[in-house]
Amino acid sequence: MLSKEENALVTQVGPGTPMGELFRRFWLPVLLSGELLERDGPPIRTRILGEDLVVFRDSLGQVGLIDAHCPHRGAGLFFGRNEEAGLRCVYHGWKFDVTGACVDMPSEPVESNFKHKVKATAYPTREWGGLIWVYMGPSERIPELPQLEWARVPAEQRTVNRVLVESSWLQMLEGDIDTSHSMFLHSAMDPALKQTSRRLDLTNDRSPRLSVQQTDYGLAYGGRYDTVDGRFDWRVTQWLMPCYTLIANKSWPVLGRAAVPIDDEHTSVISVRYDAEGGARLTPDQGWSRTKYQLPDGAVIDVARQEANQSNDYLIDRDFQRTRNYTGITRIFDQDRAVTESMGPIVDRSKEHLGTSDLAIIGMRRRLLSMLQDLQQGIEPQAPFDGELYHVRSCDALSDEGEFTRFLEVHQETLQAVV
Amino acid sequence: MLSKEENALVTQVGPGTPMGELFRRFWLPVLLSGELLERDGPPIRTRILGEDLVVFRDSLGQVGLIDAHCPHRGAGLFFGRNEEAGLRCVYHGWKFDVTGACVDMPSEPVESNFKHKVKATAYPTREWGGLIWVYMGPSERIPELPQLEWARVPAEQRTVNRVLVESSWLQMLEGDIDTSHSMFLHSAMDPALKQTSRRLDLTNDRSPRLSVQQTDYGLAYGGRYDTVDGRFDWRVTQWLMPCYTLIANKSWPVLGRAAVPIDDEHTSVISVRYDAEGGARLTPDQGWSRTKYQLPDGAVIDVARQEANQSNDYLIDRDFQRTRNYTGITRIFDQDRAVTESMGPIVDRSKEHLGTSDLAIIGMRRRLLSMLQDLQQGIEPQAPFDGELYHVRSCDALSDEGEFTRFLEVHQETLQAVV
Amino acid sequence: MLSKEENALVTQVGPGTPMGELFRRFWLPVLLSGELLERDGPPIRTRILGEDLVVFRDSLGQVGLIDAHCPHRGAGLFFGRNEEAGLRCVYHGWKFDVTGACVDMPSEPVESNFKHKVKATAYPTREWGGLIWVYMGPSERIPELPQLEWARVPAEQRTVNRVLVESSWLQMLEGDIDTSHSMFLHSAMDPALKQTSRRLDLTNDRSPRLSVQQTDYGLAYGGRYDTVDGRFDWRVTQWLMPCYTLIANKSWPVLGRAAVPIDDEHTSVISVRYDAEGGARLTPDQGWSRTKYQLPDGAVIDVARQEANQSNDYLIDRDFQRTRNYTGITRIFDQDRAVTESMGPIVDRSKEHLGTSDLAIIGMRRRLLSMLQDLQQGIEPQAPFDGELYHVRSCDALSDEGEFTRFLEVHQETLQAVV
Repeated sequence: MLSKEENALVTQVGPGTPMGELFRRFWLPVLLSGELLERDGPPIRTRILGEDLVVFRDSLGQVGLIDAHCPHRGAGLFFGRNEEAGLRCVYHGWKFDVTGACVDMPSEPVESNFKHKVKATAYPTREWGGLIWVYMGPSERIPELPQLEWARVPAEQRTVNRVLVESSWLQMLEGDIDTSHSMFLHSAMDPALKQTSRRLDLTNDRSPRLSVQQTDYGLAYGGRYDTVDGRFDWRVTQWLMPCYTLIANKSWPVLGRAAVPIDDEHTSVISVRYDAEGGARLTPDQGWSRTKYQLPDGAVIDVARQEANQSNDYLIDRDFQRTRNYTGITRIFDQDRAVTESMGPIVDRSKEHLGTSDLAIIGMRRRLLSMLQDLQQGIEPQAPFDGELYHVRSCDALSDEGEFTRFLEVHQETLQAVV
Repeated sequence: MLSKEENALVTQVGPGTPMGELFRRFWLPVLLSGELLERDGPPIRTRILGEDLVVFRDSLGQVGLIDAHCPHRGAGLFFGRNEEAGLRCVYHGWKFDVTGACVDMPSEPVESNFKHKVKATAYPTREWGGLIWVYMGPSERIPELPQLEWARVPAEQRTVNRVLVESSWLQMLEGDIDTSHSMFLHSAMDPALKQTSRRLDLTNDRSPRLSVQQTDYGLAYGGRYDTVDGRFDWRVTQWLMPCYTLIANKSWPVLGRAAVPIDDEHTSVISVRYDAEGGARLTPDQGWSRTKYQLPDGAVIDVARQEANQSNDYLIDRDFQRTRNYTGITRIFDQDRAVTESMGPIVDRSKEHLGTSDLAIIGMRRRLLSMLQDLQQGIEPQAPFDGELYHVRSCDALSDEGEFTRFLEVHQETLQAVV
Repeated sequence: MLSKEENALVTQVGPGTPMGELFRRFWLPVLLSGELLERDGPPIRTRILGEDLVVFRDSLGQVGLIDAHCPHRGAGLFFGRNEEAGLRCVYHGWKFDVTGACVDMPSEPVESNFKHKVKATAYPTREWGGLIWVYMGPSERIPELPQLEWARVPAEQRTVNRVLVESSWLQMLEGDIDTSHSMFLHSAMDPALKQTSRRLDLTNDRSPRLSVQQTDYGLAYGGRYDTVDGRFDWRVTQWLMPCYTLIANKSWPVLGRAAVPIDDEHTSVISVRYDAEGGARLTPDQGWSRTKYQLPDGAVIDVARQEANQSNDYLIDRDFQRTRNYTGITRIFDQDRAVTESMGPIVDRSKEHLGTSDLAIIGMRRRLLSMLQDLQQGIEPQAPFDGELYHVRSCDALSDEGEFTRFLEVHQETLQAVV
């Protein structure tokens, strides 16, 4: 449970808000590189941490991420001409490069000498791990890229996709560090539909014992499931600051997620399925198709909204729910979105009743609140400055050991990514 | 005319508002039983007095009406599994019975001993008169069901339907205690379209004299129309607290209405056509089909929105209006909704100009305001505790008598329901 | 650049706002006469300066412009019966003439003597220049109609149309007194698509020198383009208070515009193409078709929304943009709307960077702010009281002269409309 004030604190991400400032200390993945392949191609509209931006790939292949509106009189740069190493506003031909510098101002007489006084808000970008990353914080504090294992493996050992979630980033994140829901929300009566990522042949334990360990990158927690042969199935999941999770799986590929805030009530969720050892056959994601999506305040972004969504109750089939799987909703991530979005855009955490299965969520929130308090007192977070912290791996392993610290000790090597 | 403050007072119905509290002293009909026939069938989303709720019929046939969100972490119970005498949240399998008790919590280890500490907000329900009723007030004050005649007659002597009205409950109610509009809004030039419920062969008086009498259940008013043969056609309509009306008719069947607030700006209107004597042939209502309806704040309810509605100007046909009927809108209740909804979600009563034809409305508002003042001072309304008060009947009768009190005396027996 | 306070001052137009009061000192064109040809035909819903109104043409051909809601209990008069020299509310038959007087009140008994106490808000109207005009200010200050040349020419020398623009009136106006955008936004690579209204054979100057002259009616400004043969192409455009522009053209027909505020965030733009000398062949406008348009607050107006609009990115074609014209949007006015509306409903002028090409805009804003200050101190604007002030003409002429004042002197006669 959080107070209403705490809940506002961790869910408001716009410029100037404490959580918004904390997010602005980290590199954030915002687009798939595959969404923006074409040099001089059409810009993409996006919103990140409440700021409206356009993304474009220039003639040199560089990615620009600049204010959605021209600094001249505010015309939308989405309609701009992306040409000759810059994005040109169609209103008066003003042209900006990926750094936001105004490199051409043909509507002004030479003598007005105005061009160098104009700069578009622009944020530095990187491409890495199949994604486009942005840093929106103070330039003197630019951090390292987080060395997430899924970003380091060869491209062919990874699939990425990006989907709109119509609720706060934190709701999405909390679902991802909640191992116990998997045995309900994602379960099935029909054997053909049972999850292949779980050891369902060995365990039907649905009330895992959770242990949480705070770490430099965030936290790791273990969910301990009793197996039929008297052992323990340990599933270890990490939360890495500010918005990453690594989901345990009994075998490759493993799933990594990022829940990047569009604004307080919308999230861009990037999912990465990867195989660090290269043996697994990765089926390419069912694919996304970018669509226009109008936010409640009227602004438009270009993002994939899944076919199954709030407006059609995620295509729930009540007969299917009665006889085949738990929800009547077919795809795993649609099941996740259904519960996450059904809480409303920002769930009221002052009304919650948390159980022992929510220990990881409780630990993550405490850590967040403490970091927010620190930052407000001028104490900067350390995680962004050490990319190697992120070089860890989730784990699902059988063990005779019921103590989490002991398990971590034994599986130390497995939990380190060693690409 | 009401001041802006008074207008807010009588139209705001959420938890904690004076009018909301007054409504919470009464049983309220919220659904047709026919909308929720299936045991263990899909839940229905609803909003009543500003509270988001789901309704389900359990394996035993009992009707549960509980908070739309799971008390655990807020997932939508609409997606739940309705099975084995309870509604189970699909997120972690927590299950609630019709009383809101948590009867299963499979995600928690036995030793956490948490189940009995969790309760979903749930309201007592009844089924009666073809409807599902709810009481949302203090449990120590649970009242009697109002003994409305239409609820007491055998089911085959009654038809019920329920329709969304996109405005405040009070606008709808005021239309129902406004006899004079009938000779305009519902009138026709084409003889085939003239209302059969009026004595149009005897009277074309369009400016009835109104008399109002305050009663224990609310008020009765008479509209006196002069007839061509020198008599009076008295139409007596009741307002029964808090939101019922009985509409006069010259013969069976008679119409009863309930205007139950969904929230400040939306109303669930239940119409009952009944024949206490059993002689009339009741044509089943044209039928409703439940649809998803998204409220302006994003929440979704399951309710019938009529085909003719604001978005298509109620299918108005201007040629029809010129030559056949007064409005160019075909169905009587669509005519009512057109004027009611065209006032806006909450009409500004500080701009009104009320005439003598509005005497019943004026009397009803005064009574409401006085009850609100009483309740704020701790004086509880008496009507809910005496269901028999509601056992009255509307009446349309010819009379030689022009005084309302005298008319009531003569027709005392007719005005009493004696099923 | 304007401060946030100044920006609010010039964009808020509702009753009681300074800019709203200034607008209410002038006659404003609100509809095409062609939209309301039929006597006793259906009323049209509109909103002007934030007030919801209905317009109707009565049996005598007079145009009424009255409050959208009946003064009795607020029913929408759009559903009314337009008959026998008045608009009759369908709820209780109350009837109002074009002056707002209640001329029939059949629901009230004769003795109630109430009719003369009720008046609907109504505004005086005129028909002139193919348009319906309204005056919404104090009746003792009713001004002259502005003697715009396009209103005075014979009907066959003029085409008019009216289109919804989904942004503040001022954004639209500023686009119309911004000569320099024309060489970018409206330019083309494909010779067949080049603008025939410009002297593109003589000049490809894209950074015109602007000169501004304040006048009694508002301001005139000249955009000076260097020609290839060493002369100057002067384009003179006027802003006439409060919301008119006359756009220069090298030959007839010439374009006049009015940007009439619907509310703070929506504008009804009337465009008039005219030929005062009668020689040009006027191709009738592609035509408008009135549609229902729902404003964000739920109210509905009847207005033409162009097929190319925000919801479909103005049908932008990126290949077309790459090879044929500057924007990839086909029609000139769609190009204008794309940049205007892409700024958002009310552009934040505190973030602007204005150049020398914005001199006319700067001059117009200063004048507006000064008039607003005057009016708040009780100093009334003079322009509305002298309709002849508006009898001017825009001009595009070649000149050997580079001084604006000198140019105005030489072309004095051309700049005077002498129909």
